[in-house]
Amino acid sequence: MATTEWNRRHILSLEDFTLAEYDIILRTAASFREVLTRRTRKVPTLQGRLITNMFFEPSTRTRSSFELAAKRLSADVLNFAPGTSSLTKGETILDTAKTYLAMGTDMMVVRHKQAGVPQAIAREMERLGTHVGVLNAGDGLHAHPSQALLDLFTICQYFDPDSPRTELLKGKKIAIVGDIVHSRVARSNLWSLMASGAEVHLAAPPTLIPKQFLEAFRSNSGSLSIHWQIEPALDNADIVMTLRLQKERMGEHLLPSLREYHQGFGITRDRLALCQSHVRIMHPGPVNRGVELSSEVMDDERISLVQAQVTSGLAVRMALLYLMGGGKGP
Amino acid sequence: MATTEWNRRHILSLEDFTLAEYDIILRTAASFREVLTRRTRKVPTLQGRLITNMFFEPSTRTRSSFELAAKRLSADVLNFAPGTSSLTKGETILDTAKTYLAMGTDMMVVRHKQAGVPQAIAREMERLGTHVGVLNAGDGLHAHPSQALLDLFTICQYFDPDSPRTELLKGKKIAIVGDIVHSRVARSNLWSLMASGAEVHLAAPPTLIPKQFLEAFRSNSGSLSIHWQIEPALDNADIVMTLRLQKERMGEHLLPSLREYHQGFGITRDRLALCQSHVRIMHPGPVNRGVELSSEVMDDERISLVQAQVTSGLAVRMALLYLMGGGKGP
Amino acid sequence: MATTEWNRRHILSLEDFTLAEYDIILRTAASFREVLTRRTRKVPTLQGRLITNMFFEPSTRTRSSFELAAKRLSADVLNFAPGTSSLTKGETILDTAKTYLAMGTDMMVVRHKQAGVPQAIAREMERLGTHVGVLNAGDGLHAHPSQALLDLFTICQYFDPDSPRTELLKGKKIAIVGDIVHSRVARSNLWSLMASGAEVHLAAPPTLIPKQFLEAFRSNSGSLSIHWQIEPALDNADIVMTLRLQKERMGEHLLPSLREYHQGFGITRDRLALCQSHVRIMHPGPVNRGVELSSEVMDDERISLVQAQVTSGLAVRMALLYLMGGGKGP
Repeated sequence: MATTEWNRRHILSLEDFTLAEYDIILRTAASFREVLTRRTRKVPTLQGRLITNMFFEPSTRTRSSFELAAKRLSADVLNFAPGTSSLTKGETILDTAKTYLAMGTDMMVVRHKQAGVPQAIAREMERLGTHVGVLNAGDGLHAHPSQALLDLFTICQYFDPDSPRTELLKGKKIAIVGDIVHSRVARSNLWSLMASGAEVHLAAPPTLIPKQFLEAFRSNSGSLSIHWQIEPALDNADIVMTLRLQKERMGEHLLPSLREYHQGFGITRDRLALCQSHVRIMHPGPVNRGVELSSEVMDDERISLVQAQVTSGLAVRMALLYLMGGGKGP
Repeated sequence: MATTEWNRRHILSLEDFTLAEYDIILRTAASFREVLTRRTRKVPTLQGRLITNMFFEPSTRTRSSFELAAKRLSADVLNFAPGTSSLTKGETILDTAKTYLAMGTDMMVVRHKQAGVPQAIAREMERLGTHVGVLNAGDGLHAHPSQALLDLFTICQYFDPDSPRTELLKGKKIAIVGDIVHSRVARSNLWSLMASGAEVHLAAPPTLIPKQFLEAFRSNSGSLSIHWQIEPALDNADIVMTLRLQKERMGEHLLPSLREYHQGFGITRDRLALCQSHVRIMHPGPVNRGVELSSEVMDDERISLVQAQVTSGLAVRMALLYLMGGGKGP
Repeated sequence: MATTEWNRRHILSLEDFTLAEYDIILRTAASFREVLTRRTRKVPTLQGRLITNMFFEPSTRTRSSFELAAKRLSADVLNFAPGTSSLTKGETILDTAKTYLAMGTDMMVVRHKQAGVPQAIAREMERLGTHVGVLNAGDGLHAHPSQALLDLFTICQYFDPDSPRTELLKGKKIAIVGDIVHSRVARSNLWSLMASGAEVHLAAPPTLIPKQFLEAFRSNSGSLSIHWQIEPALDNADIVMTLRLQKERMGEHLLPSLREYHQGFGITRDRLALCQSHVRIMHPGPVNRGVELSSEVMDDERISLVQAQVTSGLAVRMALLYLMGGGKGP
């Protein structure tokens, strides 16, 4: 394998990632995954460096994952809490970012309900001539690259625990089921899965997956199909990725009821029979039990990768912070 | 002293604790109490281990104590914040626990306003074949074992600073005054005090201490009496433990007024004259001044153990995390 | 320079600070400023010591600065969160402080919307015979010494990066513009700037700067003038310090509108032409863009010291915690 170097300071979207970059991340995450099995699950890599979690949109789960990844790398962490912050006092987001820059922040992990905020912060850091790296931890409906990368790692590790790599996805059928149009997770996954050569099948009610959605992803090496019913997507699938359904969608009249959604698109044991026998189920969490997945499926630890995704998340985020911080792939 | 080993992974209730177990905790806490007097009050015992504080019911004081205990043992700590969490998004408590398990949590410290939640999490951790230990930091009206253990340590250390041990309590008269029926602290204290052979006297208005309350605690080695007036409980008492009065009780018509409660059951200097001259006053905090205790009594550092309880709390919680984490008693 | 030793346990107000003390702080901060430029920006100075941030009045920015300063010195940090605290349960502030004392706190950083709270806590710590130091991180309208000290450091470092010292301020004209009467930052700055021999010119609408305000500061070595228009204050100024305008002032009928305030007292490029050509602009943050400063001025990194103030804040707070913790000046 060629010793490709990592040259990316920010991780904002997967749109222009190369296969080589995905593979560096997978290899690096695999080595951190091994660190996490030791009794002392800590490395001194980022000792004395400062990582600021700027979660303008709150998220305990993702923030905990990044905070722990930073601590496992021995970095110091500041958590920006929007509730009691200067933002309520009229400060702009870029001013907030510059304040944390002036405190000596090396990397910023940014989540915001508006698309483009992490990119704007990254541009400002470049304009100021800093070396600060920005990681997009979710911006509006746009992107959530670390979630897609942990999903990629989870799938590749499932197919080859010792050597997760993108080529394992070539020709695999991967179903993505649920609220595609409102999902930054789905968007980011599409870039990585199709770049890896997977056959991606999207399934959702027509209101949650417009036809024109496909255009953006045309040029990739994998294939992409859209279904308004779940069965053709599950048929012979190797992996089924489910998406979280936001209850707000009901208020917007995009969905009749949670019950009807589950009847049409929920993953049940019966429906799993359509897939390959080795199929595994994924979900970015938190799961609405009885909506996206039946409790029976979710609690079947033989077929659910939901917990594995959380563990992968830690290893992948350690890898991303490590690479952004100047580390070279293993 | 026999070298008894510690074999308990979870600390959920004191109901089935043995005297030997109490004594291991007291000895271990005493050794950590000594560590806390050093200039560098830190030991590397739990380096690289992860402790997650899951306080579904918020509590700055108890959470700070556990967080600091973990840090003094060099563990990493994640604080789960219910306000901004996935729980508001419909995730179940067990799913939340499994998420933190998948992040590599070694021990969970759980507080919930509903009785039984820490036990349910512990059962799930066992069912999954994990080695994660669960510590009940307060569940509904049921139990608050670490508070009772720090109270035990505080009392024993008062009677013998060099060698706190359960036998010091044999035949001691201990009054517990206040809202017994709604107090998980009182329930947990009853197990440890009576197992140690103390003579426990409960005092409260009839609405806050039903007669049938006694049944559960019949089989223990100490003795238990109930009084609807405070004087017989204080008479010749060695220790007076007061309980926090929740102001909500008034709304439930269980109490006439805070003022009347204080007249009937508040600890004042006059009432202390009924006790032994060496009597000491305890309270789990935070104190409602002028309700459970007069300010005069509370601020008299010669007779109040309230601050000592907080310091004991840190030493005892270090001991519990240490023992749960596989350490053997000193 | 005489080797003066540091003998102050608490930092509550700058009212009685000596020039020698200011200079120790400046030298110590300069040495920490250098530490912060290293790759590993951490020193083991306060390893195992405990610093508790007691921010009864919330503040992400100042709390982050103190938290990071403590971590850079390798101290452990507890953050007291007023929202979920025992205070809502009726505990007094002194009881809260004593609880954190009993947990082993070495230093308390206290912010409260009421003047005098940090002083009361410091008195209680003295009365109890403890060695705990208290740092006032802002009390009501009274004082905010660490902000004034970081402002002092920022100005002195601007005039001599290698050797910041108070004598650099002798005869310098410093304008302070804005809501003087409601500003604890202005009050604290007046003590340090005038003690250093600066010529301080205050400018504000009459409602925000009463004449009698001057009385308290009469005895200092610098000079103090008041202006109800901005031009004489800016005329030939070396430094312009702007103050944050609280929007609440409008409700109190002390100000017509933000727009009129900006027309009368906002710093614009035109107005800067009145000052010395080397003039620099300061603001404690967060800035209301278009109110205290025009965006054009704020974003001009050649003349704004706003980011430098944040960086200075970290170095100065490290110095203060270091000195309070028993370190001697370099």
